[in-house]
Amino acid sequence: MQELKERIRREGKVLPGNIVKVDGFLNHRVDCQFMGRIADEFAKQFDVSNIDIVLTAEASGIALAAICALKYGVPMIFAKKAKSDNIEGGLYQSEIYSYTYKKKVTQLLSKEWLPAGSRVLILDDFMANGEAVRGLCDLVQQAGAELVGVGIAVEKGFQGGGDRLRAMNVNYHALAVIDRADETGIYFREDA
Amino acid sequence: MQELKERIRREGKVLPGNIVKVDGFLNHRVDCQFMGRIADEFAKQFDVSNIDIVLTAEASGIALAAICALKYGVPMIFAKKAKSDNIEGGLYQSEIYSYTYKKKVTQLLSKEWLPAGSRVLILDDFMANGEAVRGLCDLVQQAGAELVGVGIAVEKGFQGGGDRLRAMNVNYHALAVIDRADETGIYFREDA
Repeated sequence: MQELKERIRREGKVLPGNIVKVDGFLNHRVDCQFMGRIADEFAKQFDVSNIDIVLTAEASGIALAAICALKYGVPMIFAKKAKSDNIEGGLYQSEIYSYTYKKKVTQLLSKEWLPAGSRVLILDDFMANGEAVRGLCDLVQQAGAELVGVGIAVEKGFQGGGDRLRAMNVNYHALAVIDRADETGIYFREDA
Repeated sequence: MQELKERIRREGKVLPGNIVKVDGFLNHRVDCQFMGRIADEFAKQFDVSNIDIVLTAEASGIALAAICALKYGVPMIFAKKAKSDNIEGGLYQSEIYSYTYKKKVTQLLSKEWLPAGSRVLILDDFMANGEAVRGLCDLVQQAGAELVGVGIAVEKGFQGGGDRLRAMNVNYHALAVIDRADETGIYFREDA
């Protein structure tokens, strides 16, 4: 998505450790009009008239996922983060490793709100190692729901999460894939 | 807001400790179409053509705030939760007490994304003791921004947060005020 790549190039900050910060429009201050255009772009990649729910992960994916769900006319559900020893009833749980917080995190989802057979589109703002999405796919599977696809706004292509999904033949689309980010700039996969 | 009160009555679950759970449409599985109608309702209470940004708190307020911001044509920013000893640079910080997690929580907001003079509408899905909103108001003040108003979808009127804002002459509106919730049912302030 050209507009997304341009904004990442213009506004993204590269921090040590290959971190690309785009918190001025994507995951802290959120440009909601722009999220609406991203939602339209996902609607070209996925058959959004054939989904029952949008699933994302707490917290930064919620804004984008909510706006997408509004546009597609379906509800949105987000997996909640919990400490890994927090066991409650009535919940699907997946264990993931958070590279941001450098610890194990449990994703929780009420069984009640994801009935078996639901057609689920997973959406998130960012993917690096893909742990959050791996956990979400696991929740979909536990629920006996159907994974229609996975859409990511910004993929850090050099950290493996996206390539793993591609290899698994998941219906996966990222709107911008960053292949390299250093002091010389931010480079997208299509530039290679 | 009649539709909101009806859904709380129909779908809300009262748990021990005066907890009212509406996670089937508001803060876990989110009915985004309904959030759009809540956004329209807030637009009757506040002059949304005269705001620069919508501010909310991580995590459950984000979906509603994003949809409101989309409708009002402004960006949305959410204060991030951090452990209370997590001090970083370039951030406004407020200390609040989380009754949910029974511990002190720090709200963080990048100085960069809330310029002095910004006209801010604070929106959140739920208010009980009002600690989250108190922290958000504090961030607005630290930034030298202007608080246009505070809008809450569901207020638990018996826990004091809303009444404190009313006493402070904040431009405050809640779309449903629960005055009592027990095994006999959920009662709204207008019913009293």
